[in-house]
Amino acid sequence: MAGKRTRLSPEARRAQLIELGVQMLADRPLDSVSVEEIAEQAGISRGLLFHYFASKQEFHVAIVRHTSEEMLAVTEPDPQLPPLEMLHASLTAYIDYVTDNRSGYVSLLRGTASGDPAMREIFEQTRTKMAERVLEQAPNIGIERTPRAELAVRGWIAFVEETAISWLTDPKLTKDELLELVGQALPAVALPPEIAAALLGTASATGQDRAQAAV
Amino acid sequence: MAGKRTRLSPEARRAQLIELGVQMLADRPLDSVSVEEIAEQAGISRGLLFHYFASKQEFHVAIVRHTSEEMLAVTEPDPQLPPLEMLHASLTAYIDYVTDNRSGYVSLLRGTASGDPAMREIFEQTRTKMAERVLEQAPNIGIERTPRAELAVRGWIAFVEETAISWLTDPKLTKDELLELVGQALPAVALPPEIAAALLGTASATGQDRAQAAV
Repeated sequence: MAGKRTRLSPEARRAQLIELGVQMLADRPLDSVSVEEIAEQAGISRGLLFHYFASKQEFHVAIVRHTSEEMLAVTEPDPQLPPLEMLHASLTAYIDYVTDNRSGYVSLLRGTASGDPAMREIFEQTRTKMAERVLEQAPNIGIERTPRAELAVRGWIAFVEETAISWLTDPKLTKDELLELVGQALPAVALPPEIAAALLGTASATGQDRAQAAV
Repeated sequence: MAGKRTRLSPEARRAQLIELGVQMLADRPLDSVSVEEIAEQAGISRGLLFHYFASKQEFHVAIVRHTSEEMLAVTEPDPQLPPLEMLHASLTAYIDYVTDNRSGYVSLLRGTASGDPAMREIFEQTRTKMAERVLEQAPNIGIERTPRAELAVRGWIAFVEETAISWLTDPKLTKDELLELVGQALPAVALPPEIAAALLGTASATGQDRAQAAV
């Protein structure tokens, strides 16, 4: 299915090629994102694609950068929400995003790309942005910014990625159970145990009250 | 510094080459583990090394497999110890091991090797063995083997790896603070919050009593 051959500005063409790559990455591993197929979908020659990207690797890096930005955008915390609900909303958006982009996402974190220095830099920047966001909001649930909290938050992001990938590969929990696991894990690792218990106890009591009230 | 040229059986020679590689990997990234230097240290020709390993990559895989087995051996849980102390002892051995093998360890989990399918399989098997061990001992601290606990333990292993690597790269906590963080994180993510608090509260109270008694 070759796309229509339309005249686009260089910026628009570049953006179109990346967008087609991002869509393709949703359904298949990065290694299978084919320059030929994308050129065909865009209705341009393979040669012209390499006018915009010096190599297949550079094209793949541009796709992965865009995907990471997209993921950061959809998981942006909503400052209108109370802290624990804000966390829950961001985690829900994250799990939905990786579910919708399963093959690509698993290939990025577990495939050949994970060893590529340019890719690794993107992942590293993405994780740093995620950690920064969490640390900005964390004081609202009693997590002050200390070296221990910074390390705990980085570890927690790895926890979320690992559980999400294992769950995508072999989903034995419901999505809600997974969300509860990853949502509780943040205060659990970053706060002293008794404070985490008090916070999460209150949260789940509030949740129960709300459920009761809804009956 | 060329090694003495001694006659070794093929098995012994192979083991010697791997051992030299493991030692070299302690101090430098895997990419810098040089076939030439190792052949020289063993007092054999580069060509003879390739009699034992079909390629540099195959040699590197053998080194990484051996390193992983070594790490599993030193972190083997001591069944004589009470559960939380057993966990603490294994984690201490793990942190000591990665500290002693810093450059190599960081390169395995964060370098080019992390994208190599043969390497990834070794890491995956190593993590699975670590998770199995934890799940075998976990009922002793009230963590029953459920799909949720299995996922939590896998996530916790990623948490420990990530915090260990961040800490090696930029150590802002003491080793004891890091050990407390990673040790508490297991019950914290795998148990309901109030049960984790009770367990860790008791553990730290016991620790205080012991400290008091020692005064």
